[in-house]
Amino acid sequence: MPLTDGTLDDLVGYRPDLRAPDDFDEFWDRTLAEARALGGAVKADPVTDRYLLRTVEVDDVRFPGWNGEPVAAWLLRPRGAEGPLPVVVTFIGYSGGRGLPTDHLLWSAAGYAQLVVDSRGQGHDTPDRDAGGGTQWANGFMTRGIDSPENYYYRRLITDCVRAVDAVGELPGLDSDRVIVAGGSQGGGLTIAVAGLTRVAAALPDVPFLCHFRRAAEICGEGPYQELAEYLRWHSRHNVEPAFATLSYFDGVHFAQRATAPALFSVGLMDPICPPSTVYAAFNHYAGEDRTMTVWPFADHGGGHGSNSVVQLEWLRERLS
Amino acid sequence: MPLTDGTLDDLVGYRPDLRAPDDFDEFWDRTLAEARALGGAVKADPVTDRYLLRTVEVDDVRFPGWNGEPVAAWLLRPRGAEGPLPVVVTFIGYSGGRGLPTDHLLWSAAGYAQLVVDSRGQGHDTPDRDAGGGTQWANGFMTRGIDSPENYYYRRLITDCVRAVDAVGELPGLDSDRVIVAGGSQGGGLTIAVAGLTRVAAALPDVPFLCHFRRAAEICGEGPYQELAEYLRWHSRHNVEPAFATLSYFDGVHFAQRATAPALFSVGLMDPICPPSTVYAAFNHYAGEDRTMTVWPFADHGGGHGSNSVVQLEWLRERLS
Amino acid sequence: MPLTDGTLDDLVGYRPDLRAPDDFDEFWDRTLAEARALGGAVKADPVTDRYLLRTVEVDDVRFPGWNGEPVAAWLLRPRGAEGPLPVVVTFIGYSGGRGLPTDHLLWSAAGYAQLVVDSRGQGHDTPDRDAGGGTQWANGFMTRGIDSPENYYYRRLITDCVRAVDAVGELPGLDSDRVIVAGGSQGGGLTIAVAGLTRVAAALPDVPFLCHFRRAAEICGEGPYQELAEYLRWHSRHNVEPAFATLSYFDGVHFAQRATAPALFSVGLMDPICPPSTVYAAFNHYAGEDRTMTVWPFADHGGGHGSNSVVQLEWLRERLS
Amino acid sequence: MPLTDGTLDDLVGYRPDLRAPDDFDEFWDRTLAEARALGGAVKADPVTDRYLLRTVEVDDVRFPGWNGEPVAAWLLRPRGAEGPLPVVVTFIGYSGGRGLPTDHLLWSAAGYAQLVVDSRGQGHDTPDRDAGGGTQWANGFMTRGIDSPENYYYRRLITDCVRAVDAVGELPGLDSDRVIVAGGSQGGGLTIAVAGLTRVAAALPDVPFLCHFRRAAEICGEGPYQELAEYLRWHSRHNVEPAFATLSYFDGVHFAQRATAPALFSVGLMDPICPPSTVYAAFNHYAGEDRTMTVWPFADHGGGHGSNSVVQLEWLRERLS
Amino acid sequence: MPLTDGTLDDLVGYRPDLRAPDDFDEFWDRTLAEARALGGAVKADPVTDRYLLRTVEVDDVRFPGWNGEPVAAWLLRPRGAEGPLPVVVTFIGYSGGRGLPTDHLLWSAAGYAQLVVDSRGQGHDTPDRDAGGGTQWANGFMTRGIDSPENYYYRRLITDCVRAVDAVGELPGLDSDRVIVAGGSQGGGLTIAVAGLTRVAAALPDVPFLCHFRRAAEICGEGPYQELAEYLRWHSRHNVEPAFATLSYFDGVHFAQRATAPALFSVGLMDPICPPSTVYAAFNHYAGEDRTMTVWPFADHGGGHGSNSVVQLEWLRERLS
Amino acid sequence: MPLTDGTLDDLVGYRPDLRAPDDFDEFWDRTLAEARALGGAVKADPVTDRYLLRTVEVDDVRFPGWNGEPVAAWLLRPRGAEGPLPVVVTFIGYSGGRGLPTDHLLWSAAGYAQLVVDSRGQGHDTPDRDAGGGTQWANGFMTRGIDSPENYYYRRLITDCVRAVDAVGELPGLDSDRVIVAGGSQGGGLTIAVAGLTRVAAALPDVPFLCHFRRAAEICGEGPYQELAEYLRWHSRHNVEPAFATLSYFDGVHFAQRATAPALFSVGLMDPICPPSTVYAAFNHYAGEDRTMTVWPFADHGGGHGSNSVVQLEWLRERLS
Repeated sequence: MPLTDGTLDDLVGYRPDLRAPDDFDEFWDRTLAEARALGGAVKADPVTDRYLLRTVEVDDVRFPGWNGEPVAAWLLRPRGAEGPLPVVVTFIGYSGGRGLPTDHLLWSAAGYAQLVVDSRGQGHDTPDRDAGGGTQWANGFMTRGIDSPENYYYRRLITDCVRAVDAVGELPGLDSDRVIVAGGSQGGGLTIAVAGLTRVAAALPDVPFLCHFRRAAEICGEGPYQELAEYLRWHSRHNVEPAFATLSYFDGVHFAQRATAPALFSVGLMDPICPPSTVYAAFNHYAGEDRTMTVWPFADHGGGHGSNSVVQLEWLRERLS
Repeated sequence: MPLTDGTLDDLVGYRPDLRAPDDFDEFWDRTLAEARALGGAVKADPVTDRYLLRTVEVDDVRFPGWNGEPVAAWLLRPRGAEGPLPVVVTFIGYSGGRGLPTDHLLWSAAGYAQLVVDSRGQGHDTPDRDAGGGTQWANGFMTRGIDSPENYYYRRLITDCVRAVDAVGELPGLDSDRVIVAGGSQGGGLTIAVAGLTRVAAALPDVPFLCHFRRAAEICGEGPYQELAEYLRWHSRHNVEPAFATLSYFDGVHFAQRATAPALFSVGLMDPICPPSTVYAAFNHYAGEDRTMTVWPFADHGGGHGSNSVVQLEWLRERLS
Repeated sequence: MPLTDGTLDDLVGYRPDLRAPDDFDEFWDRTLAEARALGGAVKADPVTDRYLLRTVEVDDVRFPGWNGEPVAAWLLRPRGAEGPLPVVVTFIGYSGGRGLPTDHLLWSAAGYAQLVVDSRGQGHDTPDRDAGGGTQWANGFMTRGIDSPENYYYRRLITDCVRAVDAVGELPGLDSDRVIVAGGSQGGGLTIAVAGLTRVAAALPDVPFLCHFRRAAEICGEGPYQELAEYLRWHSRHNVEPAFATLSYFDGVHFAQRATAPALFSVGLMDPICPPSTVYAAFNHYAGEDRTMTVWPFADHGGGHGSNSVVQLEWLRERLS
Repeated sequence: MPLTDGTLDDLVGYRPDLRAPDDFDEFWDRTLAEARALGGAVKADPVTDRYLLRTVEVDDVRFPGWNGEPVAAWLLRPRGAEGPLPVVVTFIGYSGGRGLPTDHLLWSAAGYAQLVVDSRGQGHDTPDRDAGGGTQWANGFMTRGIDSPENYYYRRLITDCVRAVDAVGELPGLDSDRVIVAGGSQGGGLTIAVAGLTRVAAALPDVPFLCHFRRAAEICGEGPYQELAEYLRWHSRHNVEPAFATLSYFDGVHFAQRATAPALFSVGLMDPICPPSTVYAAFNHYAGEDRTMTVWPFADHGGGHGSNSVVQLEWLRERLS
Repeated sequence: MPLTDGTLDDLVGYRPDLRAPDDFDEFWDRTLAEARALGGAVKADPVTDRYLLRTVEVDDVRFPGWNGEPVAAWLLRPRGAEGPLPVVVTFIGYSGGRGLPTDHLLWSAAGYAQLVVDSRGQGHDTPDRDAGGGTQWANGFMTRGIDSPENYYYRRLITDCVRAVDAVGELPGLDSDRVIVAGGSQGGGLTIAVAGLTRVAAALPDVPFLCHFRRAAEICGEGPYQELAEYLRWHSRHNVEPAFATLSYFDGVHFAQRATAPALFSVGLMDPICPPSTVYAAFNHYAGEDRTMTVWPFADHGGGHGSNSVVQLEWLRERLS
Repeated sequence: MPLTDGTLDDLVGYRPDLRAPDDFDEFWDRTLAEARALGGAVKADPVTDRYLLRTVEVDDVRFPGWNGEPVAAWLLRPRGAEGPLPVVVTFIGYSGGRGLPTDHLLWSAAGYAQLVVDSRGQGHDTPDRDAGGGTQWANGFMTRGIDSPENYYYRRLITDCVRAVDAVGELPGLDSDRVIVAGGSQGGGLTIAVAGLTRVAAALPDVPFLCHFRRAAEICGEGPYQELAEYLRWHSRHNVEPAFATLSYFDGVHFAQRATAPALFSVGLMDPICPPSTVYAAFNHYAGEDRTMTVWPFADHGGGHGSNSVVQLEWLRERLS
């Protein structure tokens, strides 16, 4: 796997001229306001014993997401920790759900609370009943409801993610002033989106997906961005602009232009799935002044693997303590 | 591409011991009765001129399918043909919809009417709004709603297909006593299903999909049967039996056991997508006495391509004229 | 599959400086004159009933091609059409022949006659006895007889195609003043060649092959242009210029420079087999003023599939009626 | 990915007639005696703070392995746990080392101590200086030193693993009577080897590698067993028996015949890398009476992923508490 | 690459019941008689200096082959050797020609003369002008002229190879009583054919191709046997028997049944291109009593590479000196 | 396979600004001095009869290499040649050893002596006992000992190769003033290294490997340069510079800057394994004035195959006679 998108020198200054639609903010204000207006209960059900765990307290959480629908999450807290804890709200990579709590033991071991948010439709516990109004199919989620911003899958999922941050205040033992949003790949794209839509203390987007859709659709030969190209090839070949018009309400570049929390990005220069230029497009448009890019020069979409966690822990320690 | 499933000698007698669930007939009687009870209008809108056609009349049809929802179809008739025509109701292969009328010019050119039925969700014009209640996702349609027979995608699609046959009587110029059901791959599986659920004059399943799911899920290394294996690997690894319990209400083998119309099957002995043993499983259980298998010994999933159409035209001429 | 050859902005102005050999016209005048001098009978044998067709009349045609050799074709006409009809002379994609008449039902359904020309050696019915004088082999036809322009395979095939247009006047019910040449891929390359060598009313080259050989041989990683690279790698590694000298008599760019009929091209920007730059090279050199490019921005070599036919029908209606 | 090795019915009784060489026990007695005779210090260096962890105590361990050489390991213990803890000695999959302590948080979270043993040469921290005496190369470790049992790579690595169990008694807070050996793939093969060579309380081999080498070398088309076939193809084509003679001292089947601790195996029936027949060969020869196989019927080499950990935790709770 | 065709135990007794057509001998007697009747000159042109060689004398040879057409060959002899030499007549693998004399230095270095026979159409120097009468195309040579035994490509090539043996008597310094025929893959198939059709002192077929066509066409997923399956899939799907009827005149099994010279075969048990069962089919039918199989148990189509030459030199020394 | 690295026009002037480390010469002077100081015997054991050869004398040679360790080689001389002969010292491609003497018959047939040098660890006969001090593994040799120039595998192998040239004076019948170094791929990289480190009469590097490591590691998607990227991805992701610092002592570009013997390079413009830019980087830095590049414009890593040997023989004749 060679460099997918040129050398680091080519990339560091890459900042394409991209602008959100005029009603972007209005669209999202309305979307979030509607979801919040519907309200709904936050529930946390202790399941520590079911998973035979000893050093961590686990709750099976439901919080109200898009349309007030219950969204599943795991809340993990180090057992016996005192005082409200900083909490890492984690979003998941493409095509998986929250999985098992035993898949998510890092942050609690390091003294943080963690809220692992399910991705509707992608996992077991949070259906996406709407499913884009049954719009025409292509593999996966990238084109579900792509006929309009109202219908698009990521409208629902991003709303869920913002509402996860809203829910922090209603969960036990968490410090609402120290909410960190984090995730890799799709989780990274969602991290940027949430950081652009609501107030958080820090954002940790790794090898983020969902950025600079048009370029991604044109240059990717692997991974889910291809769903866009395939959809346009088979189902909308005459007229590709409406799809990109929809996507412009969900592009990580536009969320980055609105995000101000300190942010730690990462990128793999040999990543064929989330090409580095699309990551730099978001990074170089990121509105927050305290932004850092961890470059893994020979990494593919795996990025820095476990080494990246160590970088994140250190970066956070400097900022949160 | 070598033989995928043994030699012809191994295959011709392959008739695995498979039985439908006890309430199979009850399930389908109820399902169809509910759909029929909902009624709904059959509409046919002439669009010949829009497609600039001269020798064929084309109508853009909507008929009531599952839950009374409107299902799209094309009706093509040879221009100027007299009297009620025999009609070929055609079902479509996996992941495509009815397409354009210009994709379906064979049967009308041969003097038949043809009704090309859209596949809900797979094409442009017929949404599958239900989408399995938002059940957990794996690529494609094979596992949509697989948590229960009530929810399963093919319950809705097969109902649509039966209702397409019901709609024949309300469309202009067609002879309800000469309804032929036909299709390749998924269309072939649907053909067998419809032949097992309602009265038709003939059935033409080519390289049919949706037969003997368990074996297919275990041996296929290509094509959509793999969605089952992938789903069970990722989302239901602890307990695979419920999925197969659902599938048993939709297995072409069980529909074949109930179908009596004359039938012309085809099979490719090098087909990696619909392995020949699964096709023979349905064929050897087919209840009708007048059944014929066209064997394409070196064919892959393409079967006999255009040559198969010639075989079908001749087989029908002997039976319908 | 990403963009194969840069963005549309890069491509629209691509017009490489390419010139035909000085004796190009002399070569082709002589070649065609020789073929015409040999004459030969045009025969049309009605086979409608053999294929059980009702709305279309089919003739099995033989016309004299290169060296006066009989070349097979299907003539399809809408049954009962009156007056001389405009006729679409269709050339076939690489490695197939004319197939069955039932594979070619579109144009007659739209009220045109169609003459489907077999490709010598590639199909069942028209041998290429000469086979390049037995020149050294590489897979396929691209290097058959490449040792000299006299011997090269496409000299014979292009001559056949021009002679197909010549034969129109001797076939029943056709209007020699409304000959449209058409085809995709190899058929598109042949369309351009014929439009450059004889008088036609319109040309419809889709995703054309056989254009800008040198670039194609250097950049293609899929499809038959690779036969050139493979041949030069294995059989002519010391000296590649003679092969390109031969090819310069057959390059679509040079035919385009001589073609004046109205033309409707199409191109897929993700086409790995006929890279868009080679298509634009021909298009931008096309001598006719009335030339249009249909761009399918996310298409691979499938181009616009059936949607392209609709575009063609509309484009022709504006010009031929 | 279909079934790689037949159906479950074919596999459950698979118990090939395989016997260890006559001097197998003598070989291993001598090998282990020599290593133990060399002695060497066990060292544990606290590194919890370096990794910013809170709920777990981490020590960077060196214990004496083969030839007395220091072997790296991580010791993880739930912080503040009282009394000697049961300890899971974990061996690592092929081509990786012990990684970071943050990669191994499950067992301590569940109240166990865990000792994560580095694989010499495969990781960062434990060189394999001997490297098989520089024997002729093929990719990887499977053929390093294959010229003789004395020289073979796995002689050294298995000795390291046995010595890891020996070291438990010298590490703080561990209960030597409750040593569980565990690992997946190569780690699973090592688990069986250690269980056959020394006393442990339980063994958890998942999708184990290093079993029934001959069959594996003959049927595998993916994964490291292929290194054997490749080596024999390129470097020892005249005479393959000496290699298998060496391997017979390291075959998991022969270790299983000597192992008596309660064991929980797992297998994926679609595993192309460690074919199920090779896993059943070891399982069906396993000498302990309390042995259980967890079958993941549609799993590839990933086996049961996180779900398998839950099964293990429950199985251990029943036996160790 | 695993075993392609079962274990050695399965293979050694594999002797399928195959019989040549009744007029097989008559066909070949007539074919050879016609070629011999046409006569033609044998010419040998010294080219040693052109290739700057010192220890070997090279002649560029033309001998009369099928239809009396000149066939190219290289004659290599150890410089200064005395007396008539035993000569190895070598046939070439599929899709290559005689190449350069410097590609063939082994036999002369070992004291033999060698005649390297070009394969018509496959190399530079011997055209196959007939090219099967221009029969319909599929990639390669396997189906050229497959419409009849008269027309089939291998009729011409095998005749060339027999005529190469005939030519030995007219070339300088060779001993016609010590002609060894040899070759790998296609060259191995030709070796068997020539040994079955004319008198030779020994035959050395390595990993031979062109044996047991039907089984090969059904089981091969790699290599040129697939040309048969592809041809039958695309061009002769209705009726595959005529192709196999043609092939029965060219099957190595039938030539083996007629060959009596001492023979040394080789086979690779992991050969995906010439499956071991097809090699054993020829070997077990071989009529000569002095026949030996060299088994390379982990070899793919490369067989024993250079090691096989050493085996051959030793085997010949025992028989020819 | 398309052009891997741009057109010839782009490449011919490619001369990146690369400089050796300041102590490069000191490092190599010391390395070679140490090896030479250790001395060691050169032995040549006649084995002509064992290999049944007649026109060539073969000796099985051992000469002292790195650390005075015995390195295997074959010495081949044309039988009966008089006077000291020019000798081609040949280095081998990646992952193979000296093989059999029968694999190397060209140069002796052309009147040269040839010394075929084994590659330690890669072949049967010369172990690389040190194996980089057991440093952490990635597939192959590219990263063995990459932690320091002292430890790096190619330090030992290049020293062996220089010492092979030293050994020429102690072998029978060779002319030390006419030593030609030669090899393809890894052998080509070693050729450049030796030409930069000691006095030779000519150098023949074909499609050389081991040049311009950084670019190669960044752009290669095939072949052993990828071992670098993989190593850096998995084992050294935080800090890639030390690896490149080590490599800078072994880069063909830096050896080329010191080499003055007449040199004949070759390059394939479609070579995906040793990209043409890396070959031109070495060529354009080559210090000798008499340097020639043979360009094979459509070649992959096979370069000019046998045709290249003919070019070499002619080039040498002009210079050595």
